[in-house]
Amino acid sequence: MSNIQLWIVGSIGIDDIETPAEKRTGLLGGSVTYACAAASFFTPAGAVGVVGSDFPAGFLERYRRFGIDRTGLQTCPGATFRWAGVYEADFINRRTLDTRLGVFADFSPKLPEAFRDAPFVLLGNIGPSLQLHVLDQARGRPFVVADTMDLWIRIARPELEQVIRRVDMLTLNDAEARLLTGRHNLLDCARAILAMGPRYLVIKKGEHGAMLCSGQGLALIPAFPVEQVVDPTGAGDCFAGAFMGFLAHTRASRIDEPLLRRALLHGSVVASFGVEAFSTERLERLTLPEIESRAAALRAMCAL
Amino acid sequence: MSNIQLWIVGSIGIDDIETPAEKRTGLLGGSVTYACAAASFFTPAGAVGVVGSDFPAGFLERYRRFGIDRTGLQTCPGATFRWAGVYEADFINRRTLDTRLGVFADFSPKLPEAFRDAPFVLLGNIGPSLQLHVLDQARGRPFVVADTMDLWIRIARPELEQVIRRVDMLTLNDAEARLLTGRHNLLDCARAILAMGPRYLVIKKGEHGAMLCSGQGLALIPAFPVEQVVDPTGAGDCFAGAFMGFLAHTRASRIDEPLLRRALLHGSVVASFGVEAFSTERLERLTLPEIESRAAALRAMCAL
Repeated sequence: MSNIQLWIVGSIGIDDIETPAEKRTGLLGGSVTYACAAASFFTPAGAVGVVGSDFPAGFLERYRRFGIDRTGLQTCPGATFRWAGVYEADFINRRTLDTRLGVFADFSPKLPEAFRDAPFVLLGNIGPSLQLHVLDQARGRPFVVADTMDLWIRIARPELEQVIRRVDMLTLNDAEARLLTGRHNLLDCARAILAMGPRYLVIKKGEHGAMLCSGQGLALIPAFPVEQVVDPTGAGDCFAGAFMGFLAHTRASRIDEPLLRRALLHGSVVASFGVEAFSTERLERLTLPEIESRAAALRAMCAL
Repeated sequence: MSNIQLWIVGSIGIDDIETPAEKRTGLLGGSVTYACAAASFFTPAGAVGVVGSDFPAGFLERYRRFGIDRTGLQTCPGATFRWAGVYEADFINRRTLDTRLGVFADFSPKLPEAFRDAPFVLLGNIGPSLQLHVLDQARGRPFVVADTMDLWIRIARPELEQVIRRVDMLTLNDAEARLLTGRHNLLDCARAILAMGPRYLVIKKGEHGAMLCSGQGLALIPAFPVEQVVDPTGAGDCFAGAFMGFLAHTRASRIDEPLLRRALLHGSVVASFGVEAFSTERLERLTLPEIESRAAALRAMCAL
């Protein structure tokens, strides 16, 4: 019987990605994929998601090699979710060329029995009603983090507000924080979002790091300056996944701010590796000593 | 006889500034003004610049109250340099509405005898040929920092390259670093600029802080998250001025990387106060304990 500490729900997809330097098709992607792979350096994560009958066996094999628990993966007749996008010269802004939901259109996440008591839950970036549906299947009082995106703020705000009320931490990027609150200053945004319910908020700023906001104040989480960004897709998912994996791994009896800072630092570091290659390719050859070494280097860069 | 440790050359101007929240005219501005005011919390700085016969006595009185040495101020017949600009909704991007050089058009900086042996020099953002002209009047081997901007990269590159070769540290913002080197990744930019001569480089990233680059590697200098930005004009000058003031104040026998980090942290903090009001208005009521308190808070936010 599985005894996972962390499960992660979200999308699993096949991506076609074009950067200013290279074009790649048929890549393993999706928020669950990136987040579970990133978490796997600290704890085996349980994946909750759906794939189509066309999902390559090789991709499942990659899940296996990351030690991801696949009990929560549904395989449905039809096509796997597909996304195609192109990055601008800055490797940050991107345009979606095509989205084909496939089996994801009818996805109704079902939490395996063996996941229900896990103490850590990451609700990856999917529609808030799906996030609520799967969260309802959890037992106990897990530490729950939800990620979201501009789309849901625009088209599913009431459901998103329900999610925000029920989670311990929300993560979103700076533009999304502004969209959600209608404010510009990020401290104003943070206050407004914390007033919506969660104890903690992480505002992601891409290459500029992230801000942890709570009633205790602010923490600035740096981003590691990457020599060569190859593909930024999934960076936010890696950040959240490694963060949660690190938290779950510590088995701390109490989650406090200093622990969250350390966990977020590790999220930042794993994300910095993730963008050094397409898909999960860099994570596949990443080692824990490499992570610790970069975490130490990043700490040293920030010593004041 | 004056015995200043630091002198600063640059522009002195009268600004008309429009932000999304407010419009103000006839403000004391210019890179020398902001930088000397910011330095003054740590050491009295000597200002080198030119004003017209229309320069208000009240502005000179403000210089005096900051303890700025005015021996290097020339007053010429004609109008003081004027700049008018408008900020976009983000309080970051701005458009110049009007520039009138006035007496600045014929400015030939003359270094007072009492400044010539000062061990610290800040070449504020003016044309590189003027920076070279005034630097030639210094004696000894001062620690020299130069600031620059996109305009000089575009229209005076050969002279700017001479400046870069001769200074200990160059400061510019991220967009300017990319413009100067034709590279996108900031680490690539840093390597290219360090190869042009200076021992140290500071790449400013506005609200995202700054990066100190050298042969010893990188240091990430955070920006203090400001509750309400009122006017970002002069933030870079405050940063550089307070940084140099702090350095000069320590009278350290050797300038090394840890000292530079501490000095840059103080630059960052003073700049964060500077943007809380128009012109030097916040700096006029700023105290050293406030600076130290914010520096401690910023350090605490970055503890990992």
